[in-house]
Amino acid sequence: MKIDIISAVPELLDSPFQHSIMKRAAEKSLFEVVVHDLRKYGIGKHNKIDDYQYGGGAGMVMCIEPILKCISEISAGQEIDEIIYMTPDGEEYSQKMANHLSMKKHMIIICGHYKGIDERLREHVVTKEISIGSYVLSGGELAAAVVVDSIGRLLPGVLNDETSALFDSYQDDMLAPPVYTRPADYNGWKVPDILLSGNDGKIEEWREDRAYERTKERRPNLLKPKDE
Amino acid sequence: MKIDIISAVPELLDSPFQHSIMKRAAEKSLFEVVVHDLRKYGIGKHNKIDDYQYGGGAGMVMCIEPILKCISEISAGQEIDEIIYMTPDGEEYSQKMANHLSMKKHMIIICGHYKGIDERLREHVVTKEISIGSYVLSGGELAAAVVVDSIGRLLPGVLNDETSALFDSYQDDMLAPPVYTRPADYNGWKVPDILLSGNDGKIEEWREDRAYERTKERRPNLLKPKDE
Repeated sequence: MKIDIISAVPELLDSPFQHSIMKRAAEKSLFEVVVHDLRKYGIGKHNKIDDYQYGGGAGMVMCIEPILKCISEISAGQEIDEIIYMTPDGEEYSQKMANHLSMKKHMIIICGHYKGIDERLREHVVTKEISIGSYVLSGGELAAAVVVDSIGRLLPGVLNDETSALFDSYQDDMLAPPVYTRPADYNGWKVPDILLSGNDGKIEEWREDRAYERTKERRPNLLKPKDE
Repeated sequence: MKIDIISAVPELLDSPFQHSIMKRAAEKSLFEVVVHDLRKYGIGKHNKIDDYQYGGGAGMVMCIEPILKCISEISAGQEIDEIIYMTPDGEEYSQKMANHLSMKKHMIIICGHYKGIDERLREHVVTKEISIGSYVLSGGELAAAVVVDSIGRLLPGVLNDETSALFDSYQDDMLAPPVYTRPADYNGWKVPDILLSGNDGKIEEWREDRAYERTKERRPNLLKPKDE
């Protein structure tokens, strides 16, 4: 899989893909993430990438031309599955969407900044708009990093233990049960006896019950029957 | 405001706070973010920070002791407003929560990794559990960065134009209207005439209508009357 990220502040993304799981994925050639500096595609000698908004008001808007130039360079001779725009009013990101996107081969992600990109790009160029949650960030970079990370860890061979992602919260529409490790007694804080019992059947049952309880308490909507 | 982040992979957070808006906030001393390397507080000569989970199963669990040691060092002589744990099953993060947290003085954020932290820390130490969305990441670092960014930009003086954050999506429970910039005609893609009219009253009305329409289409739940 290849993901090209278009950003006005590419330095923000220097570290998140160079360590831990994303680094391992890149080293195994399972995953390639390239961050493009939008300023290189700016207009005129000042490499302008934004301008005042029509109709007045605070905040700059990112221009059409630099983004189109960058996209056309990235997509020359390539098949692009999705051109994604990270925006607070996009479709709400979910584990299901992460699973779905993890099957794609090549995606471009545009990071908004300031007031966002010119609406005409959203109408004519962008194929998918994603919001990682109902809050506003200073730019789309961290949101893009979240999407890339959540997809990257699903690619076969990226996580050390392939079974691990299957038992995550949100797979099977259920939160994960509580986990405990050594010591069994930390100054009076004790691990539930059942987990020390060695009885695999009972432990499995306990975990299912706790996962269900936690989901019912914290995300009851996951338990509702779906229309689709 | 000060935020201390506890992480097993602090390198992941090298870049997100050193550029753009977060950098400006730090330079103006409005905001201090310190990332602590959990391995420095690890157990024994191998600085162990995680162990197998009780009851068996794939994935490691982060131990109690290193996290407690790190927290007690950070909080020595300090008043801590919140000890936050980033976890997919936490309370769903929202702009309202960002606004609320932006009033705090000193917070600690624990980033989970692997299967997460020992449940006993969640019961006895953590004061708030936050999920940035219904999906799973390879660790809590990017989630912590999202929270810090969303809070940081709300602090007075951080954004260049103080009016800017007030017109964001999700403030006033409404999405932002579409924005346009130069040129007015890009190969036949045109800016709506009204925005070029110079009639401020009509422009304001148009924006309110578009914001309402977009909210109704994309986030109808924001328009529902609230119980609280």
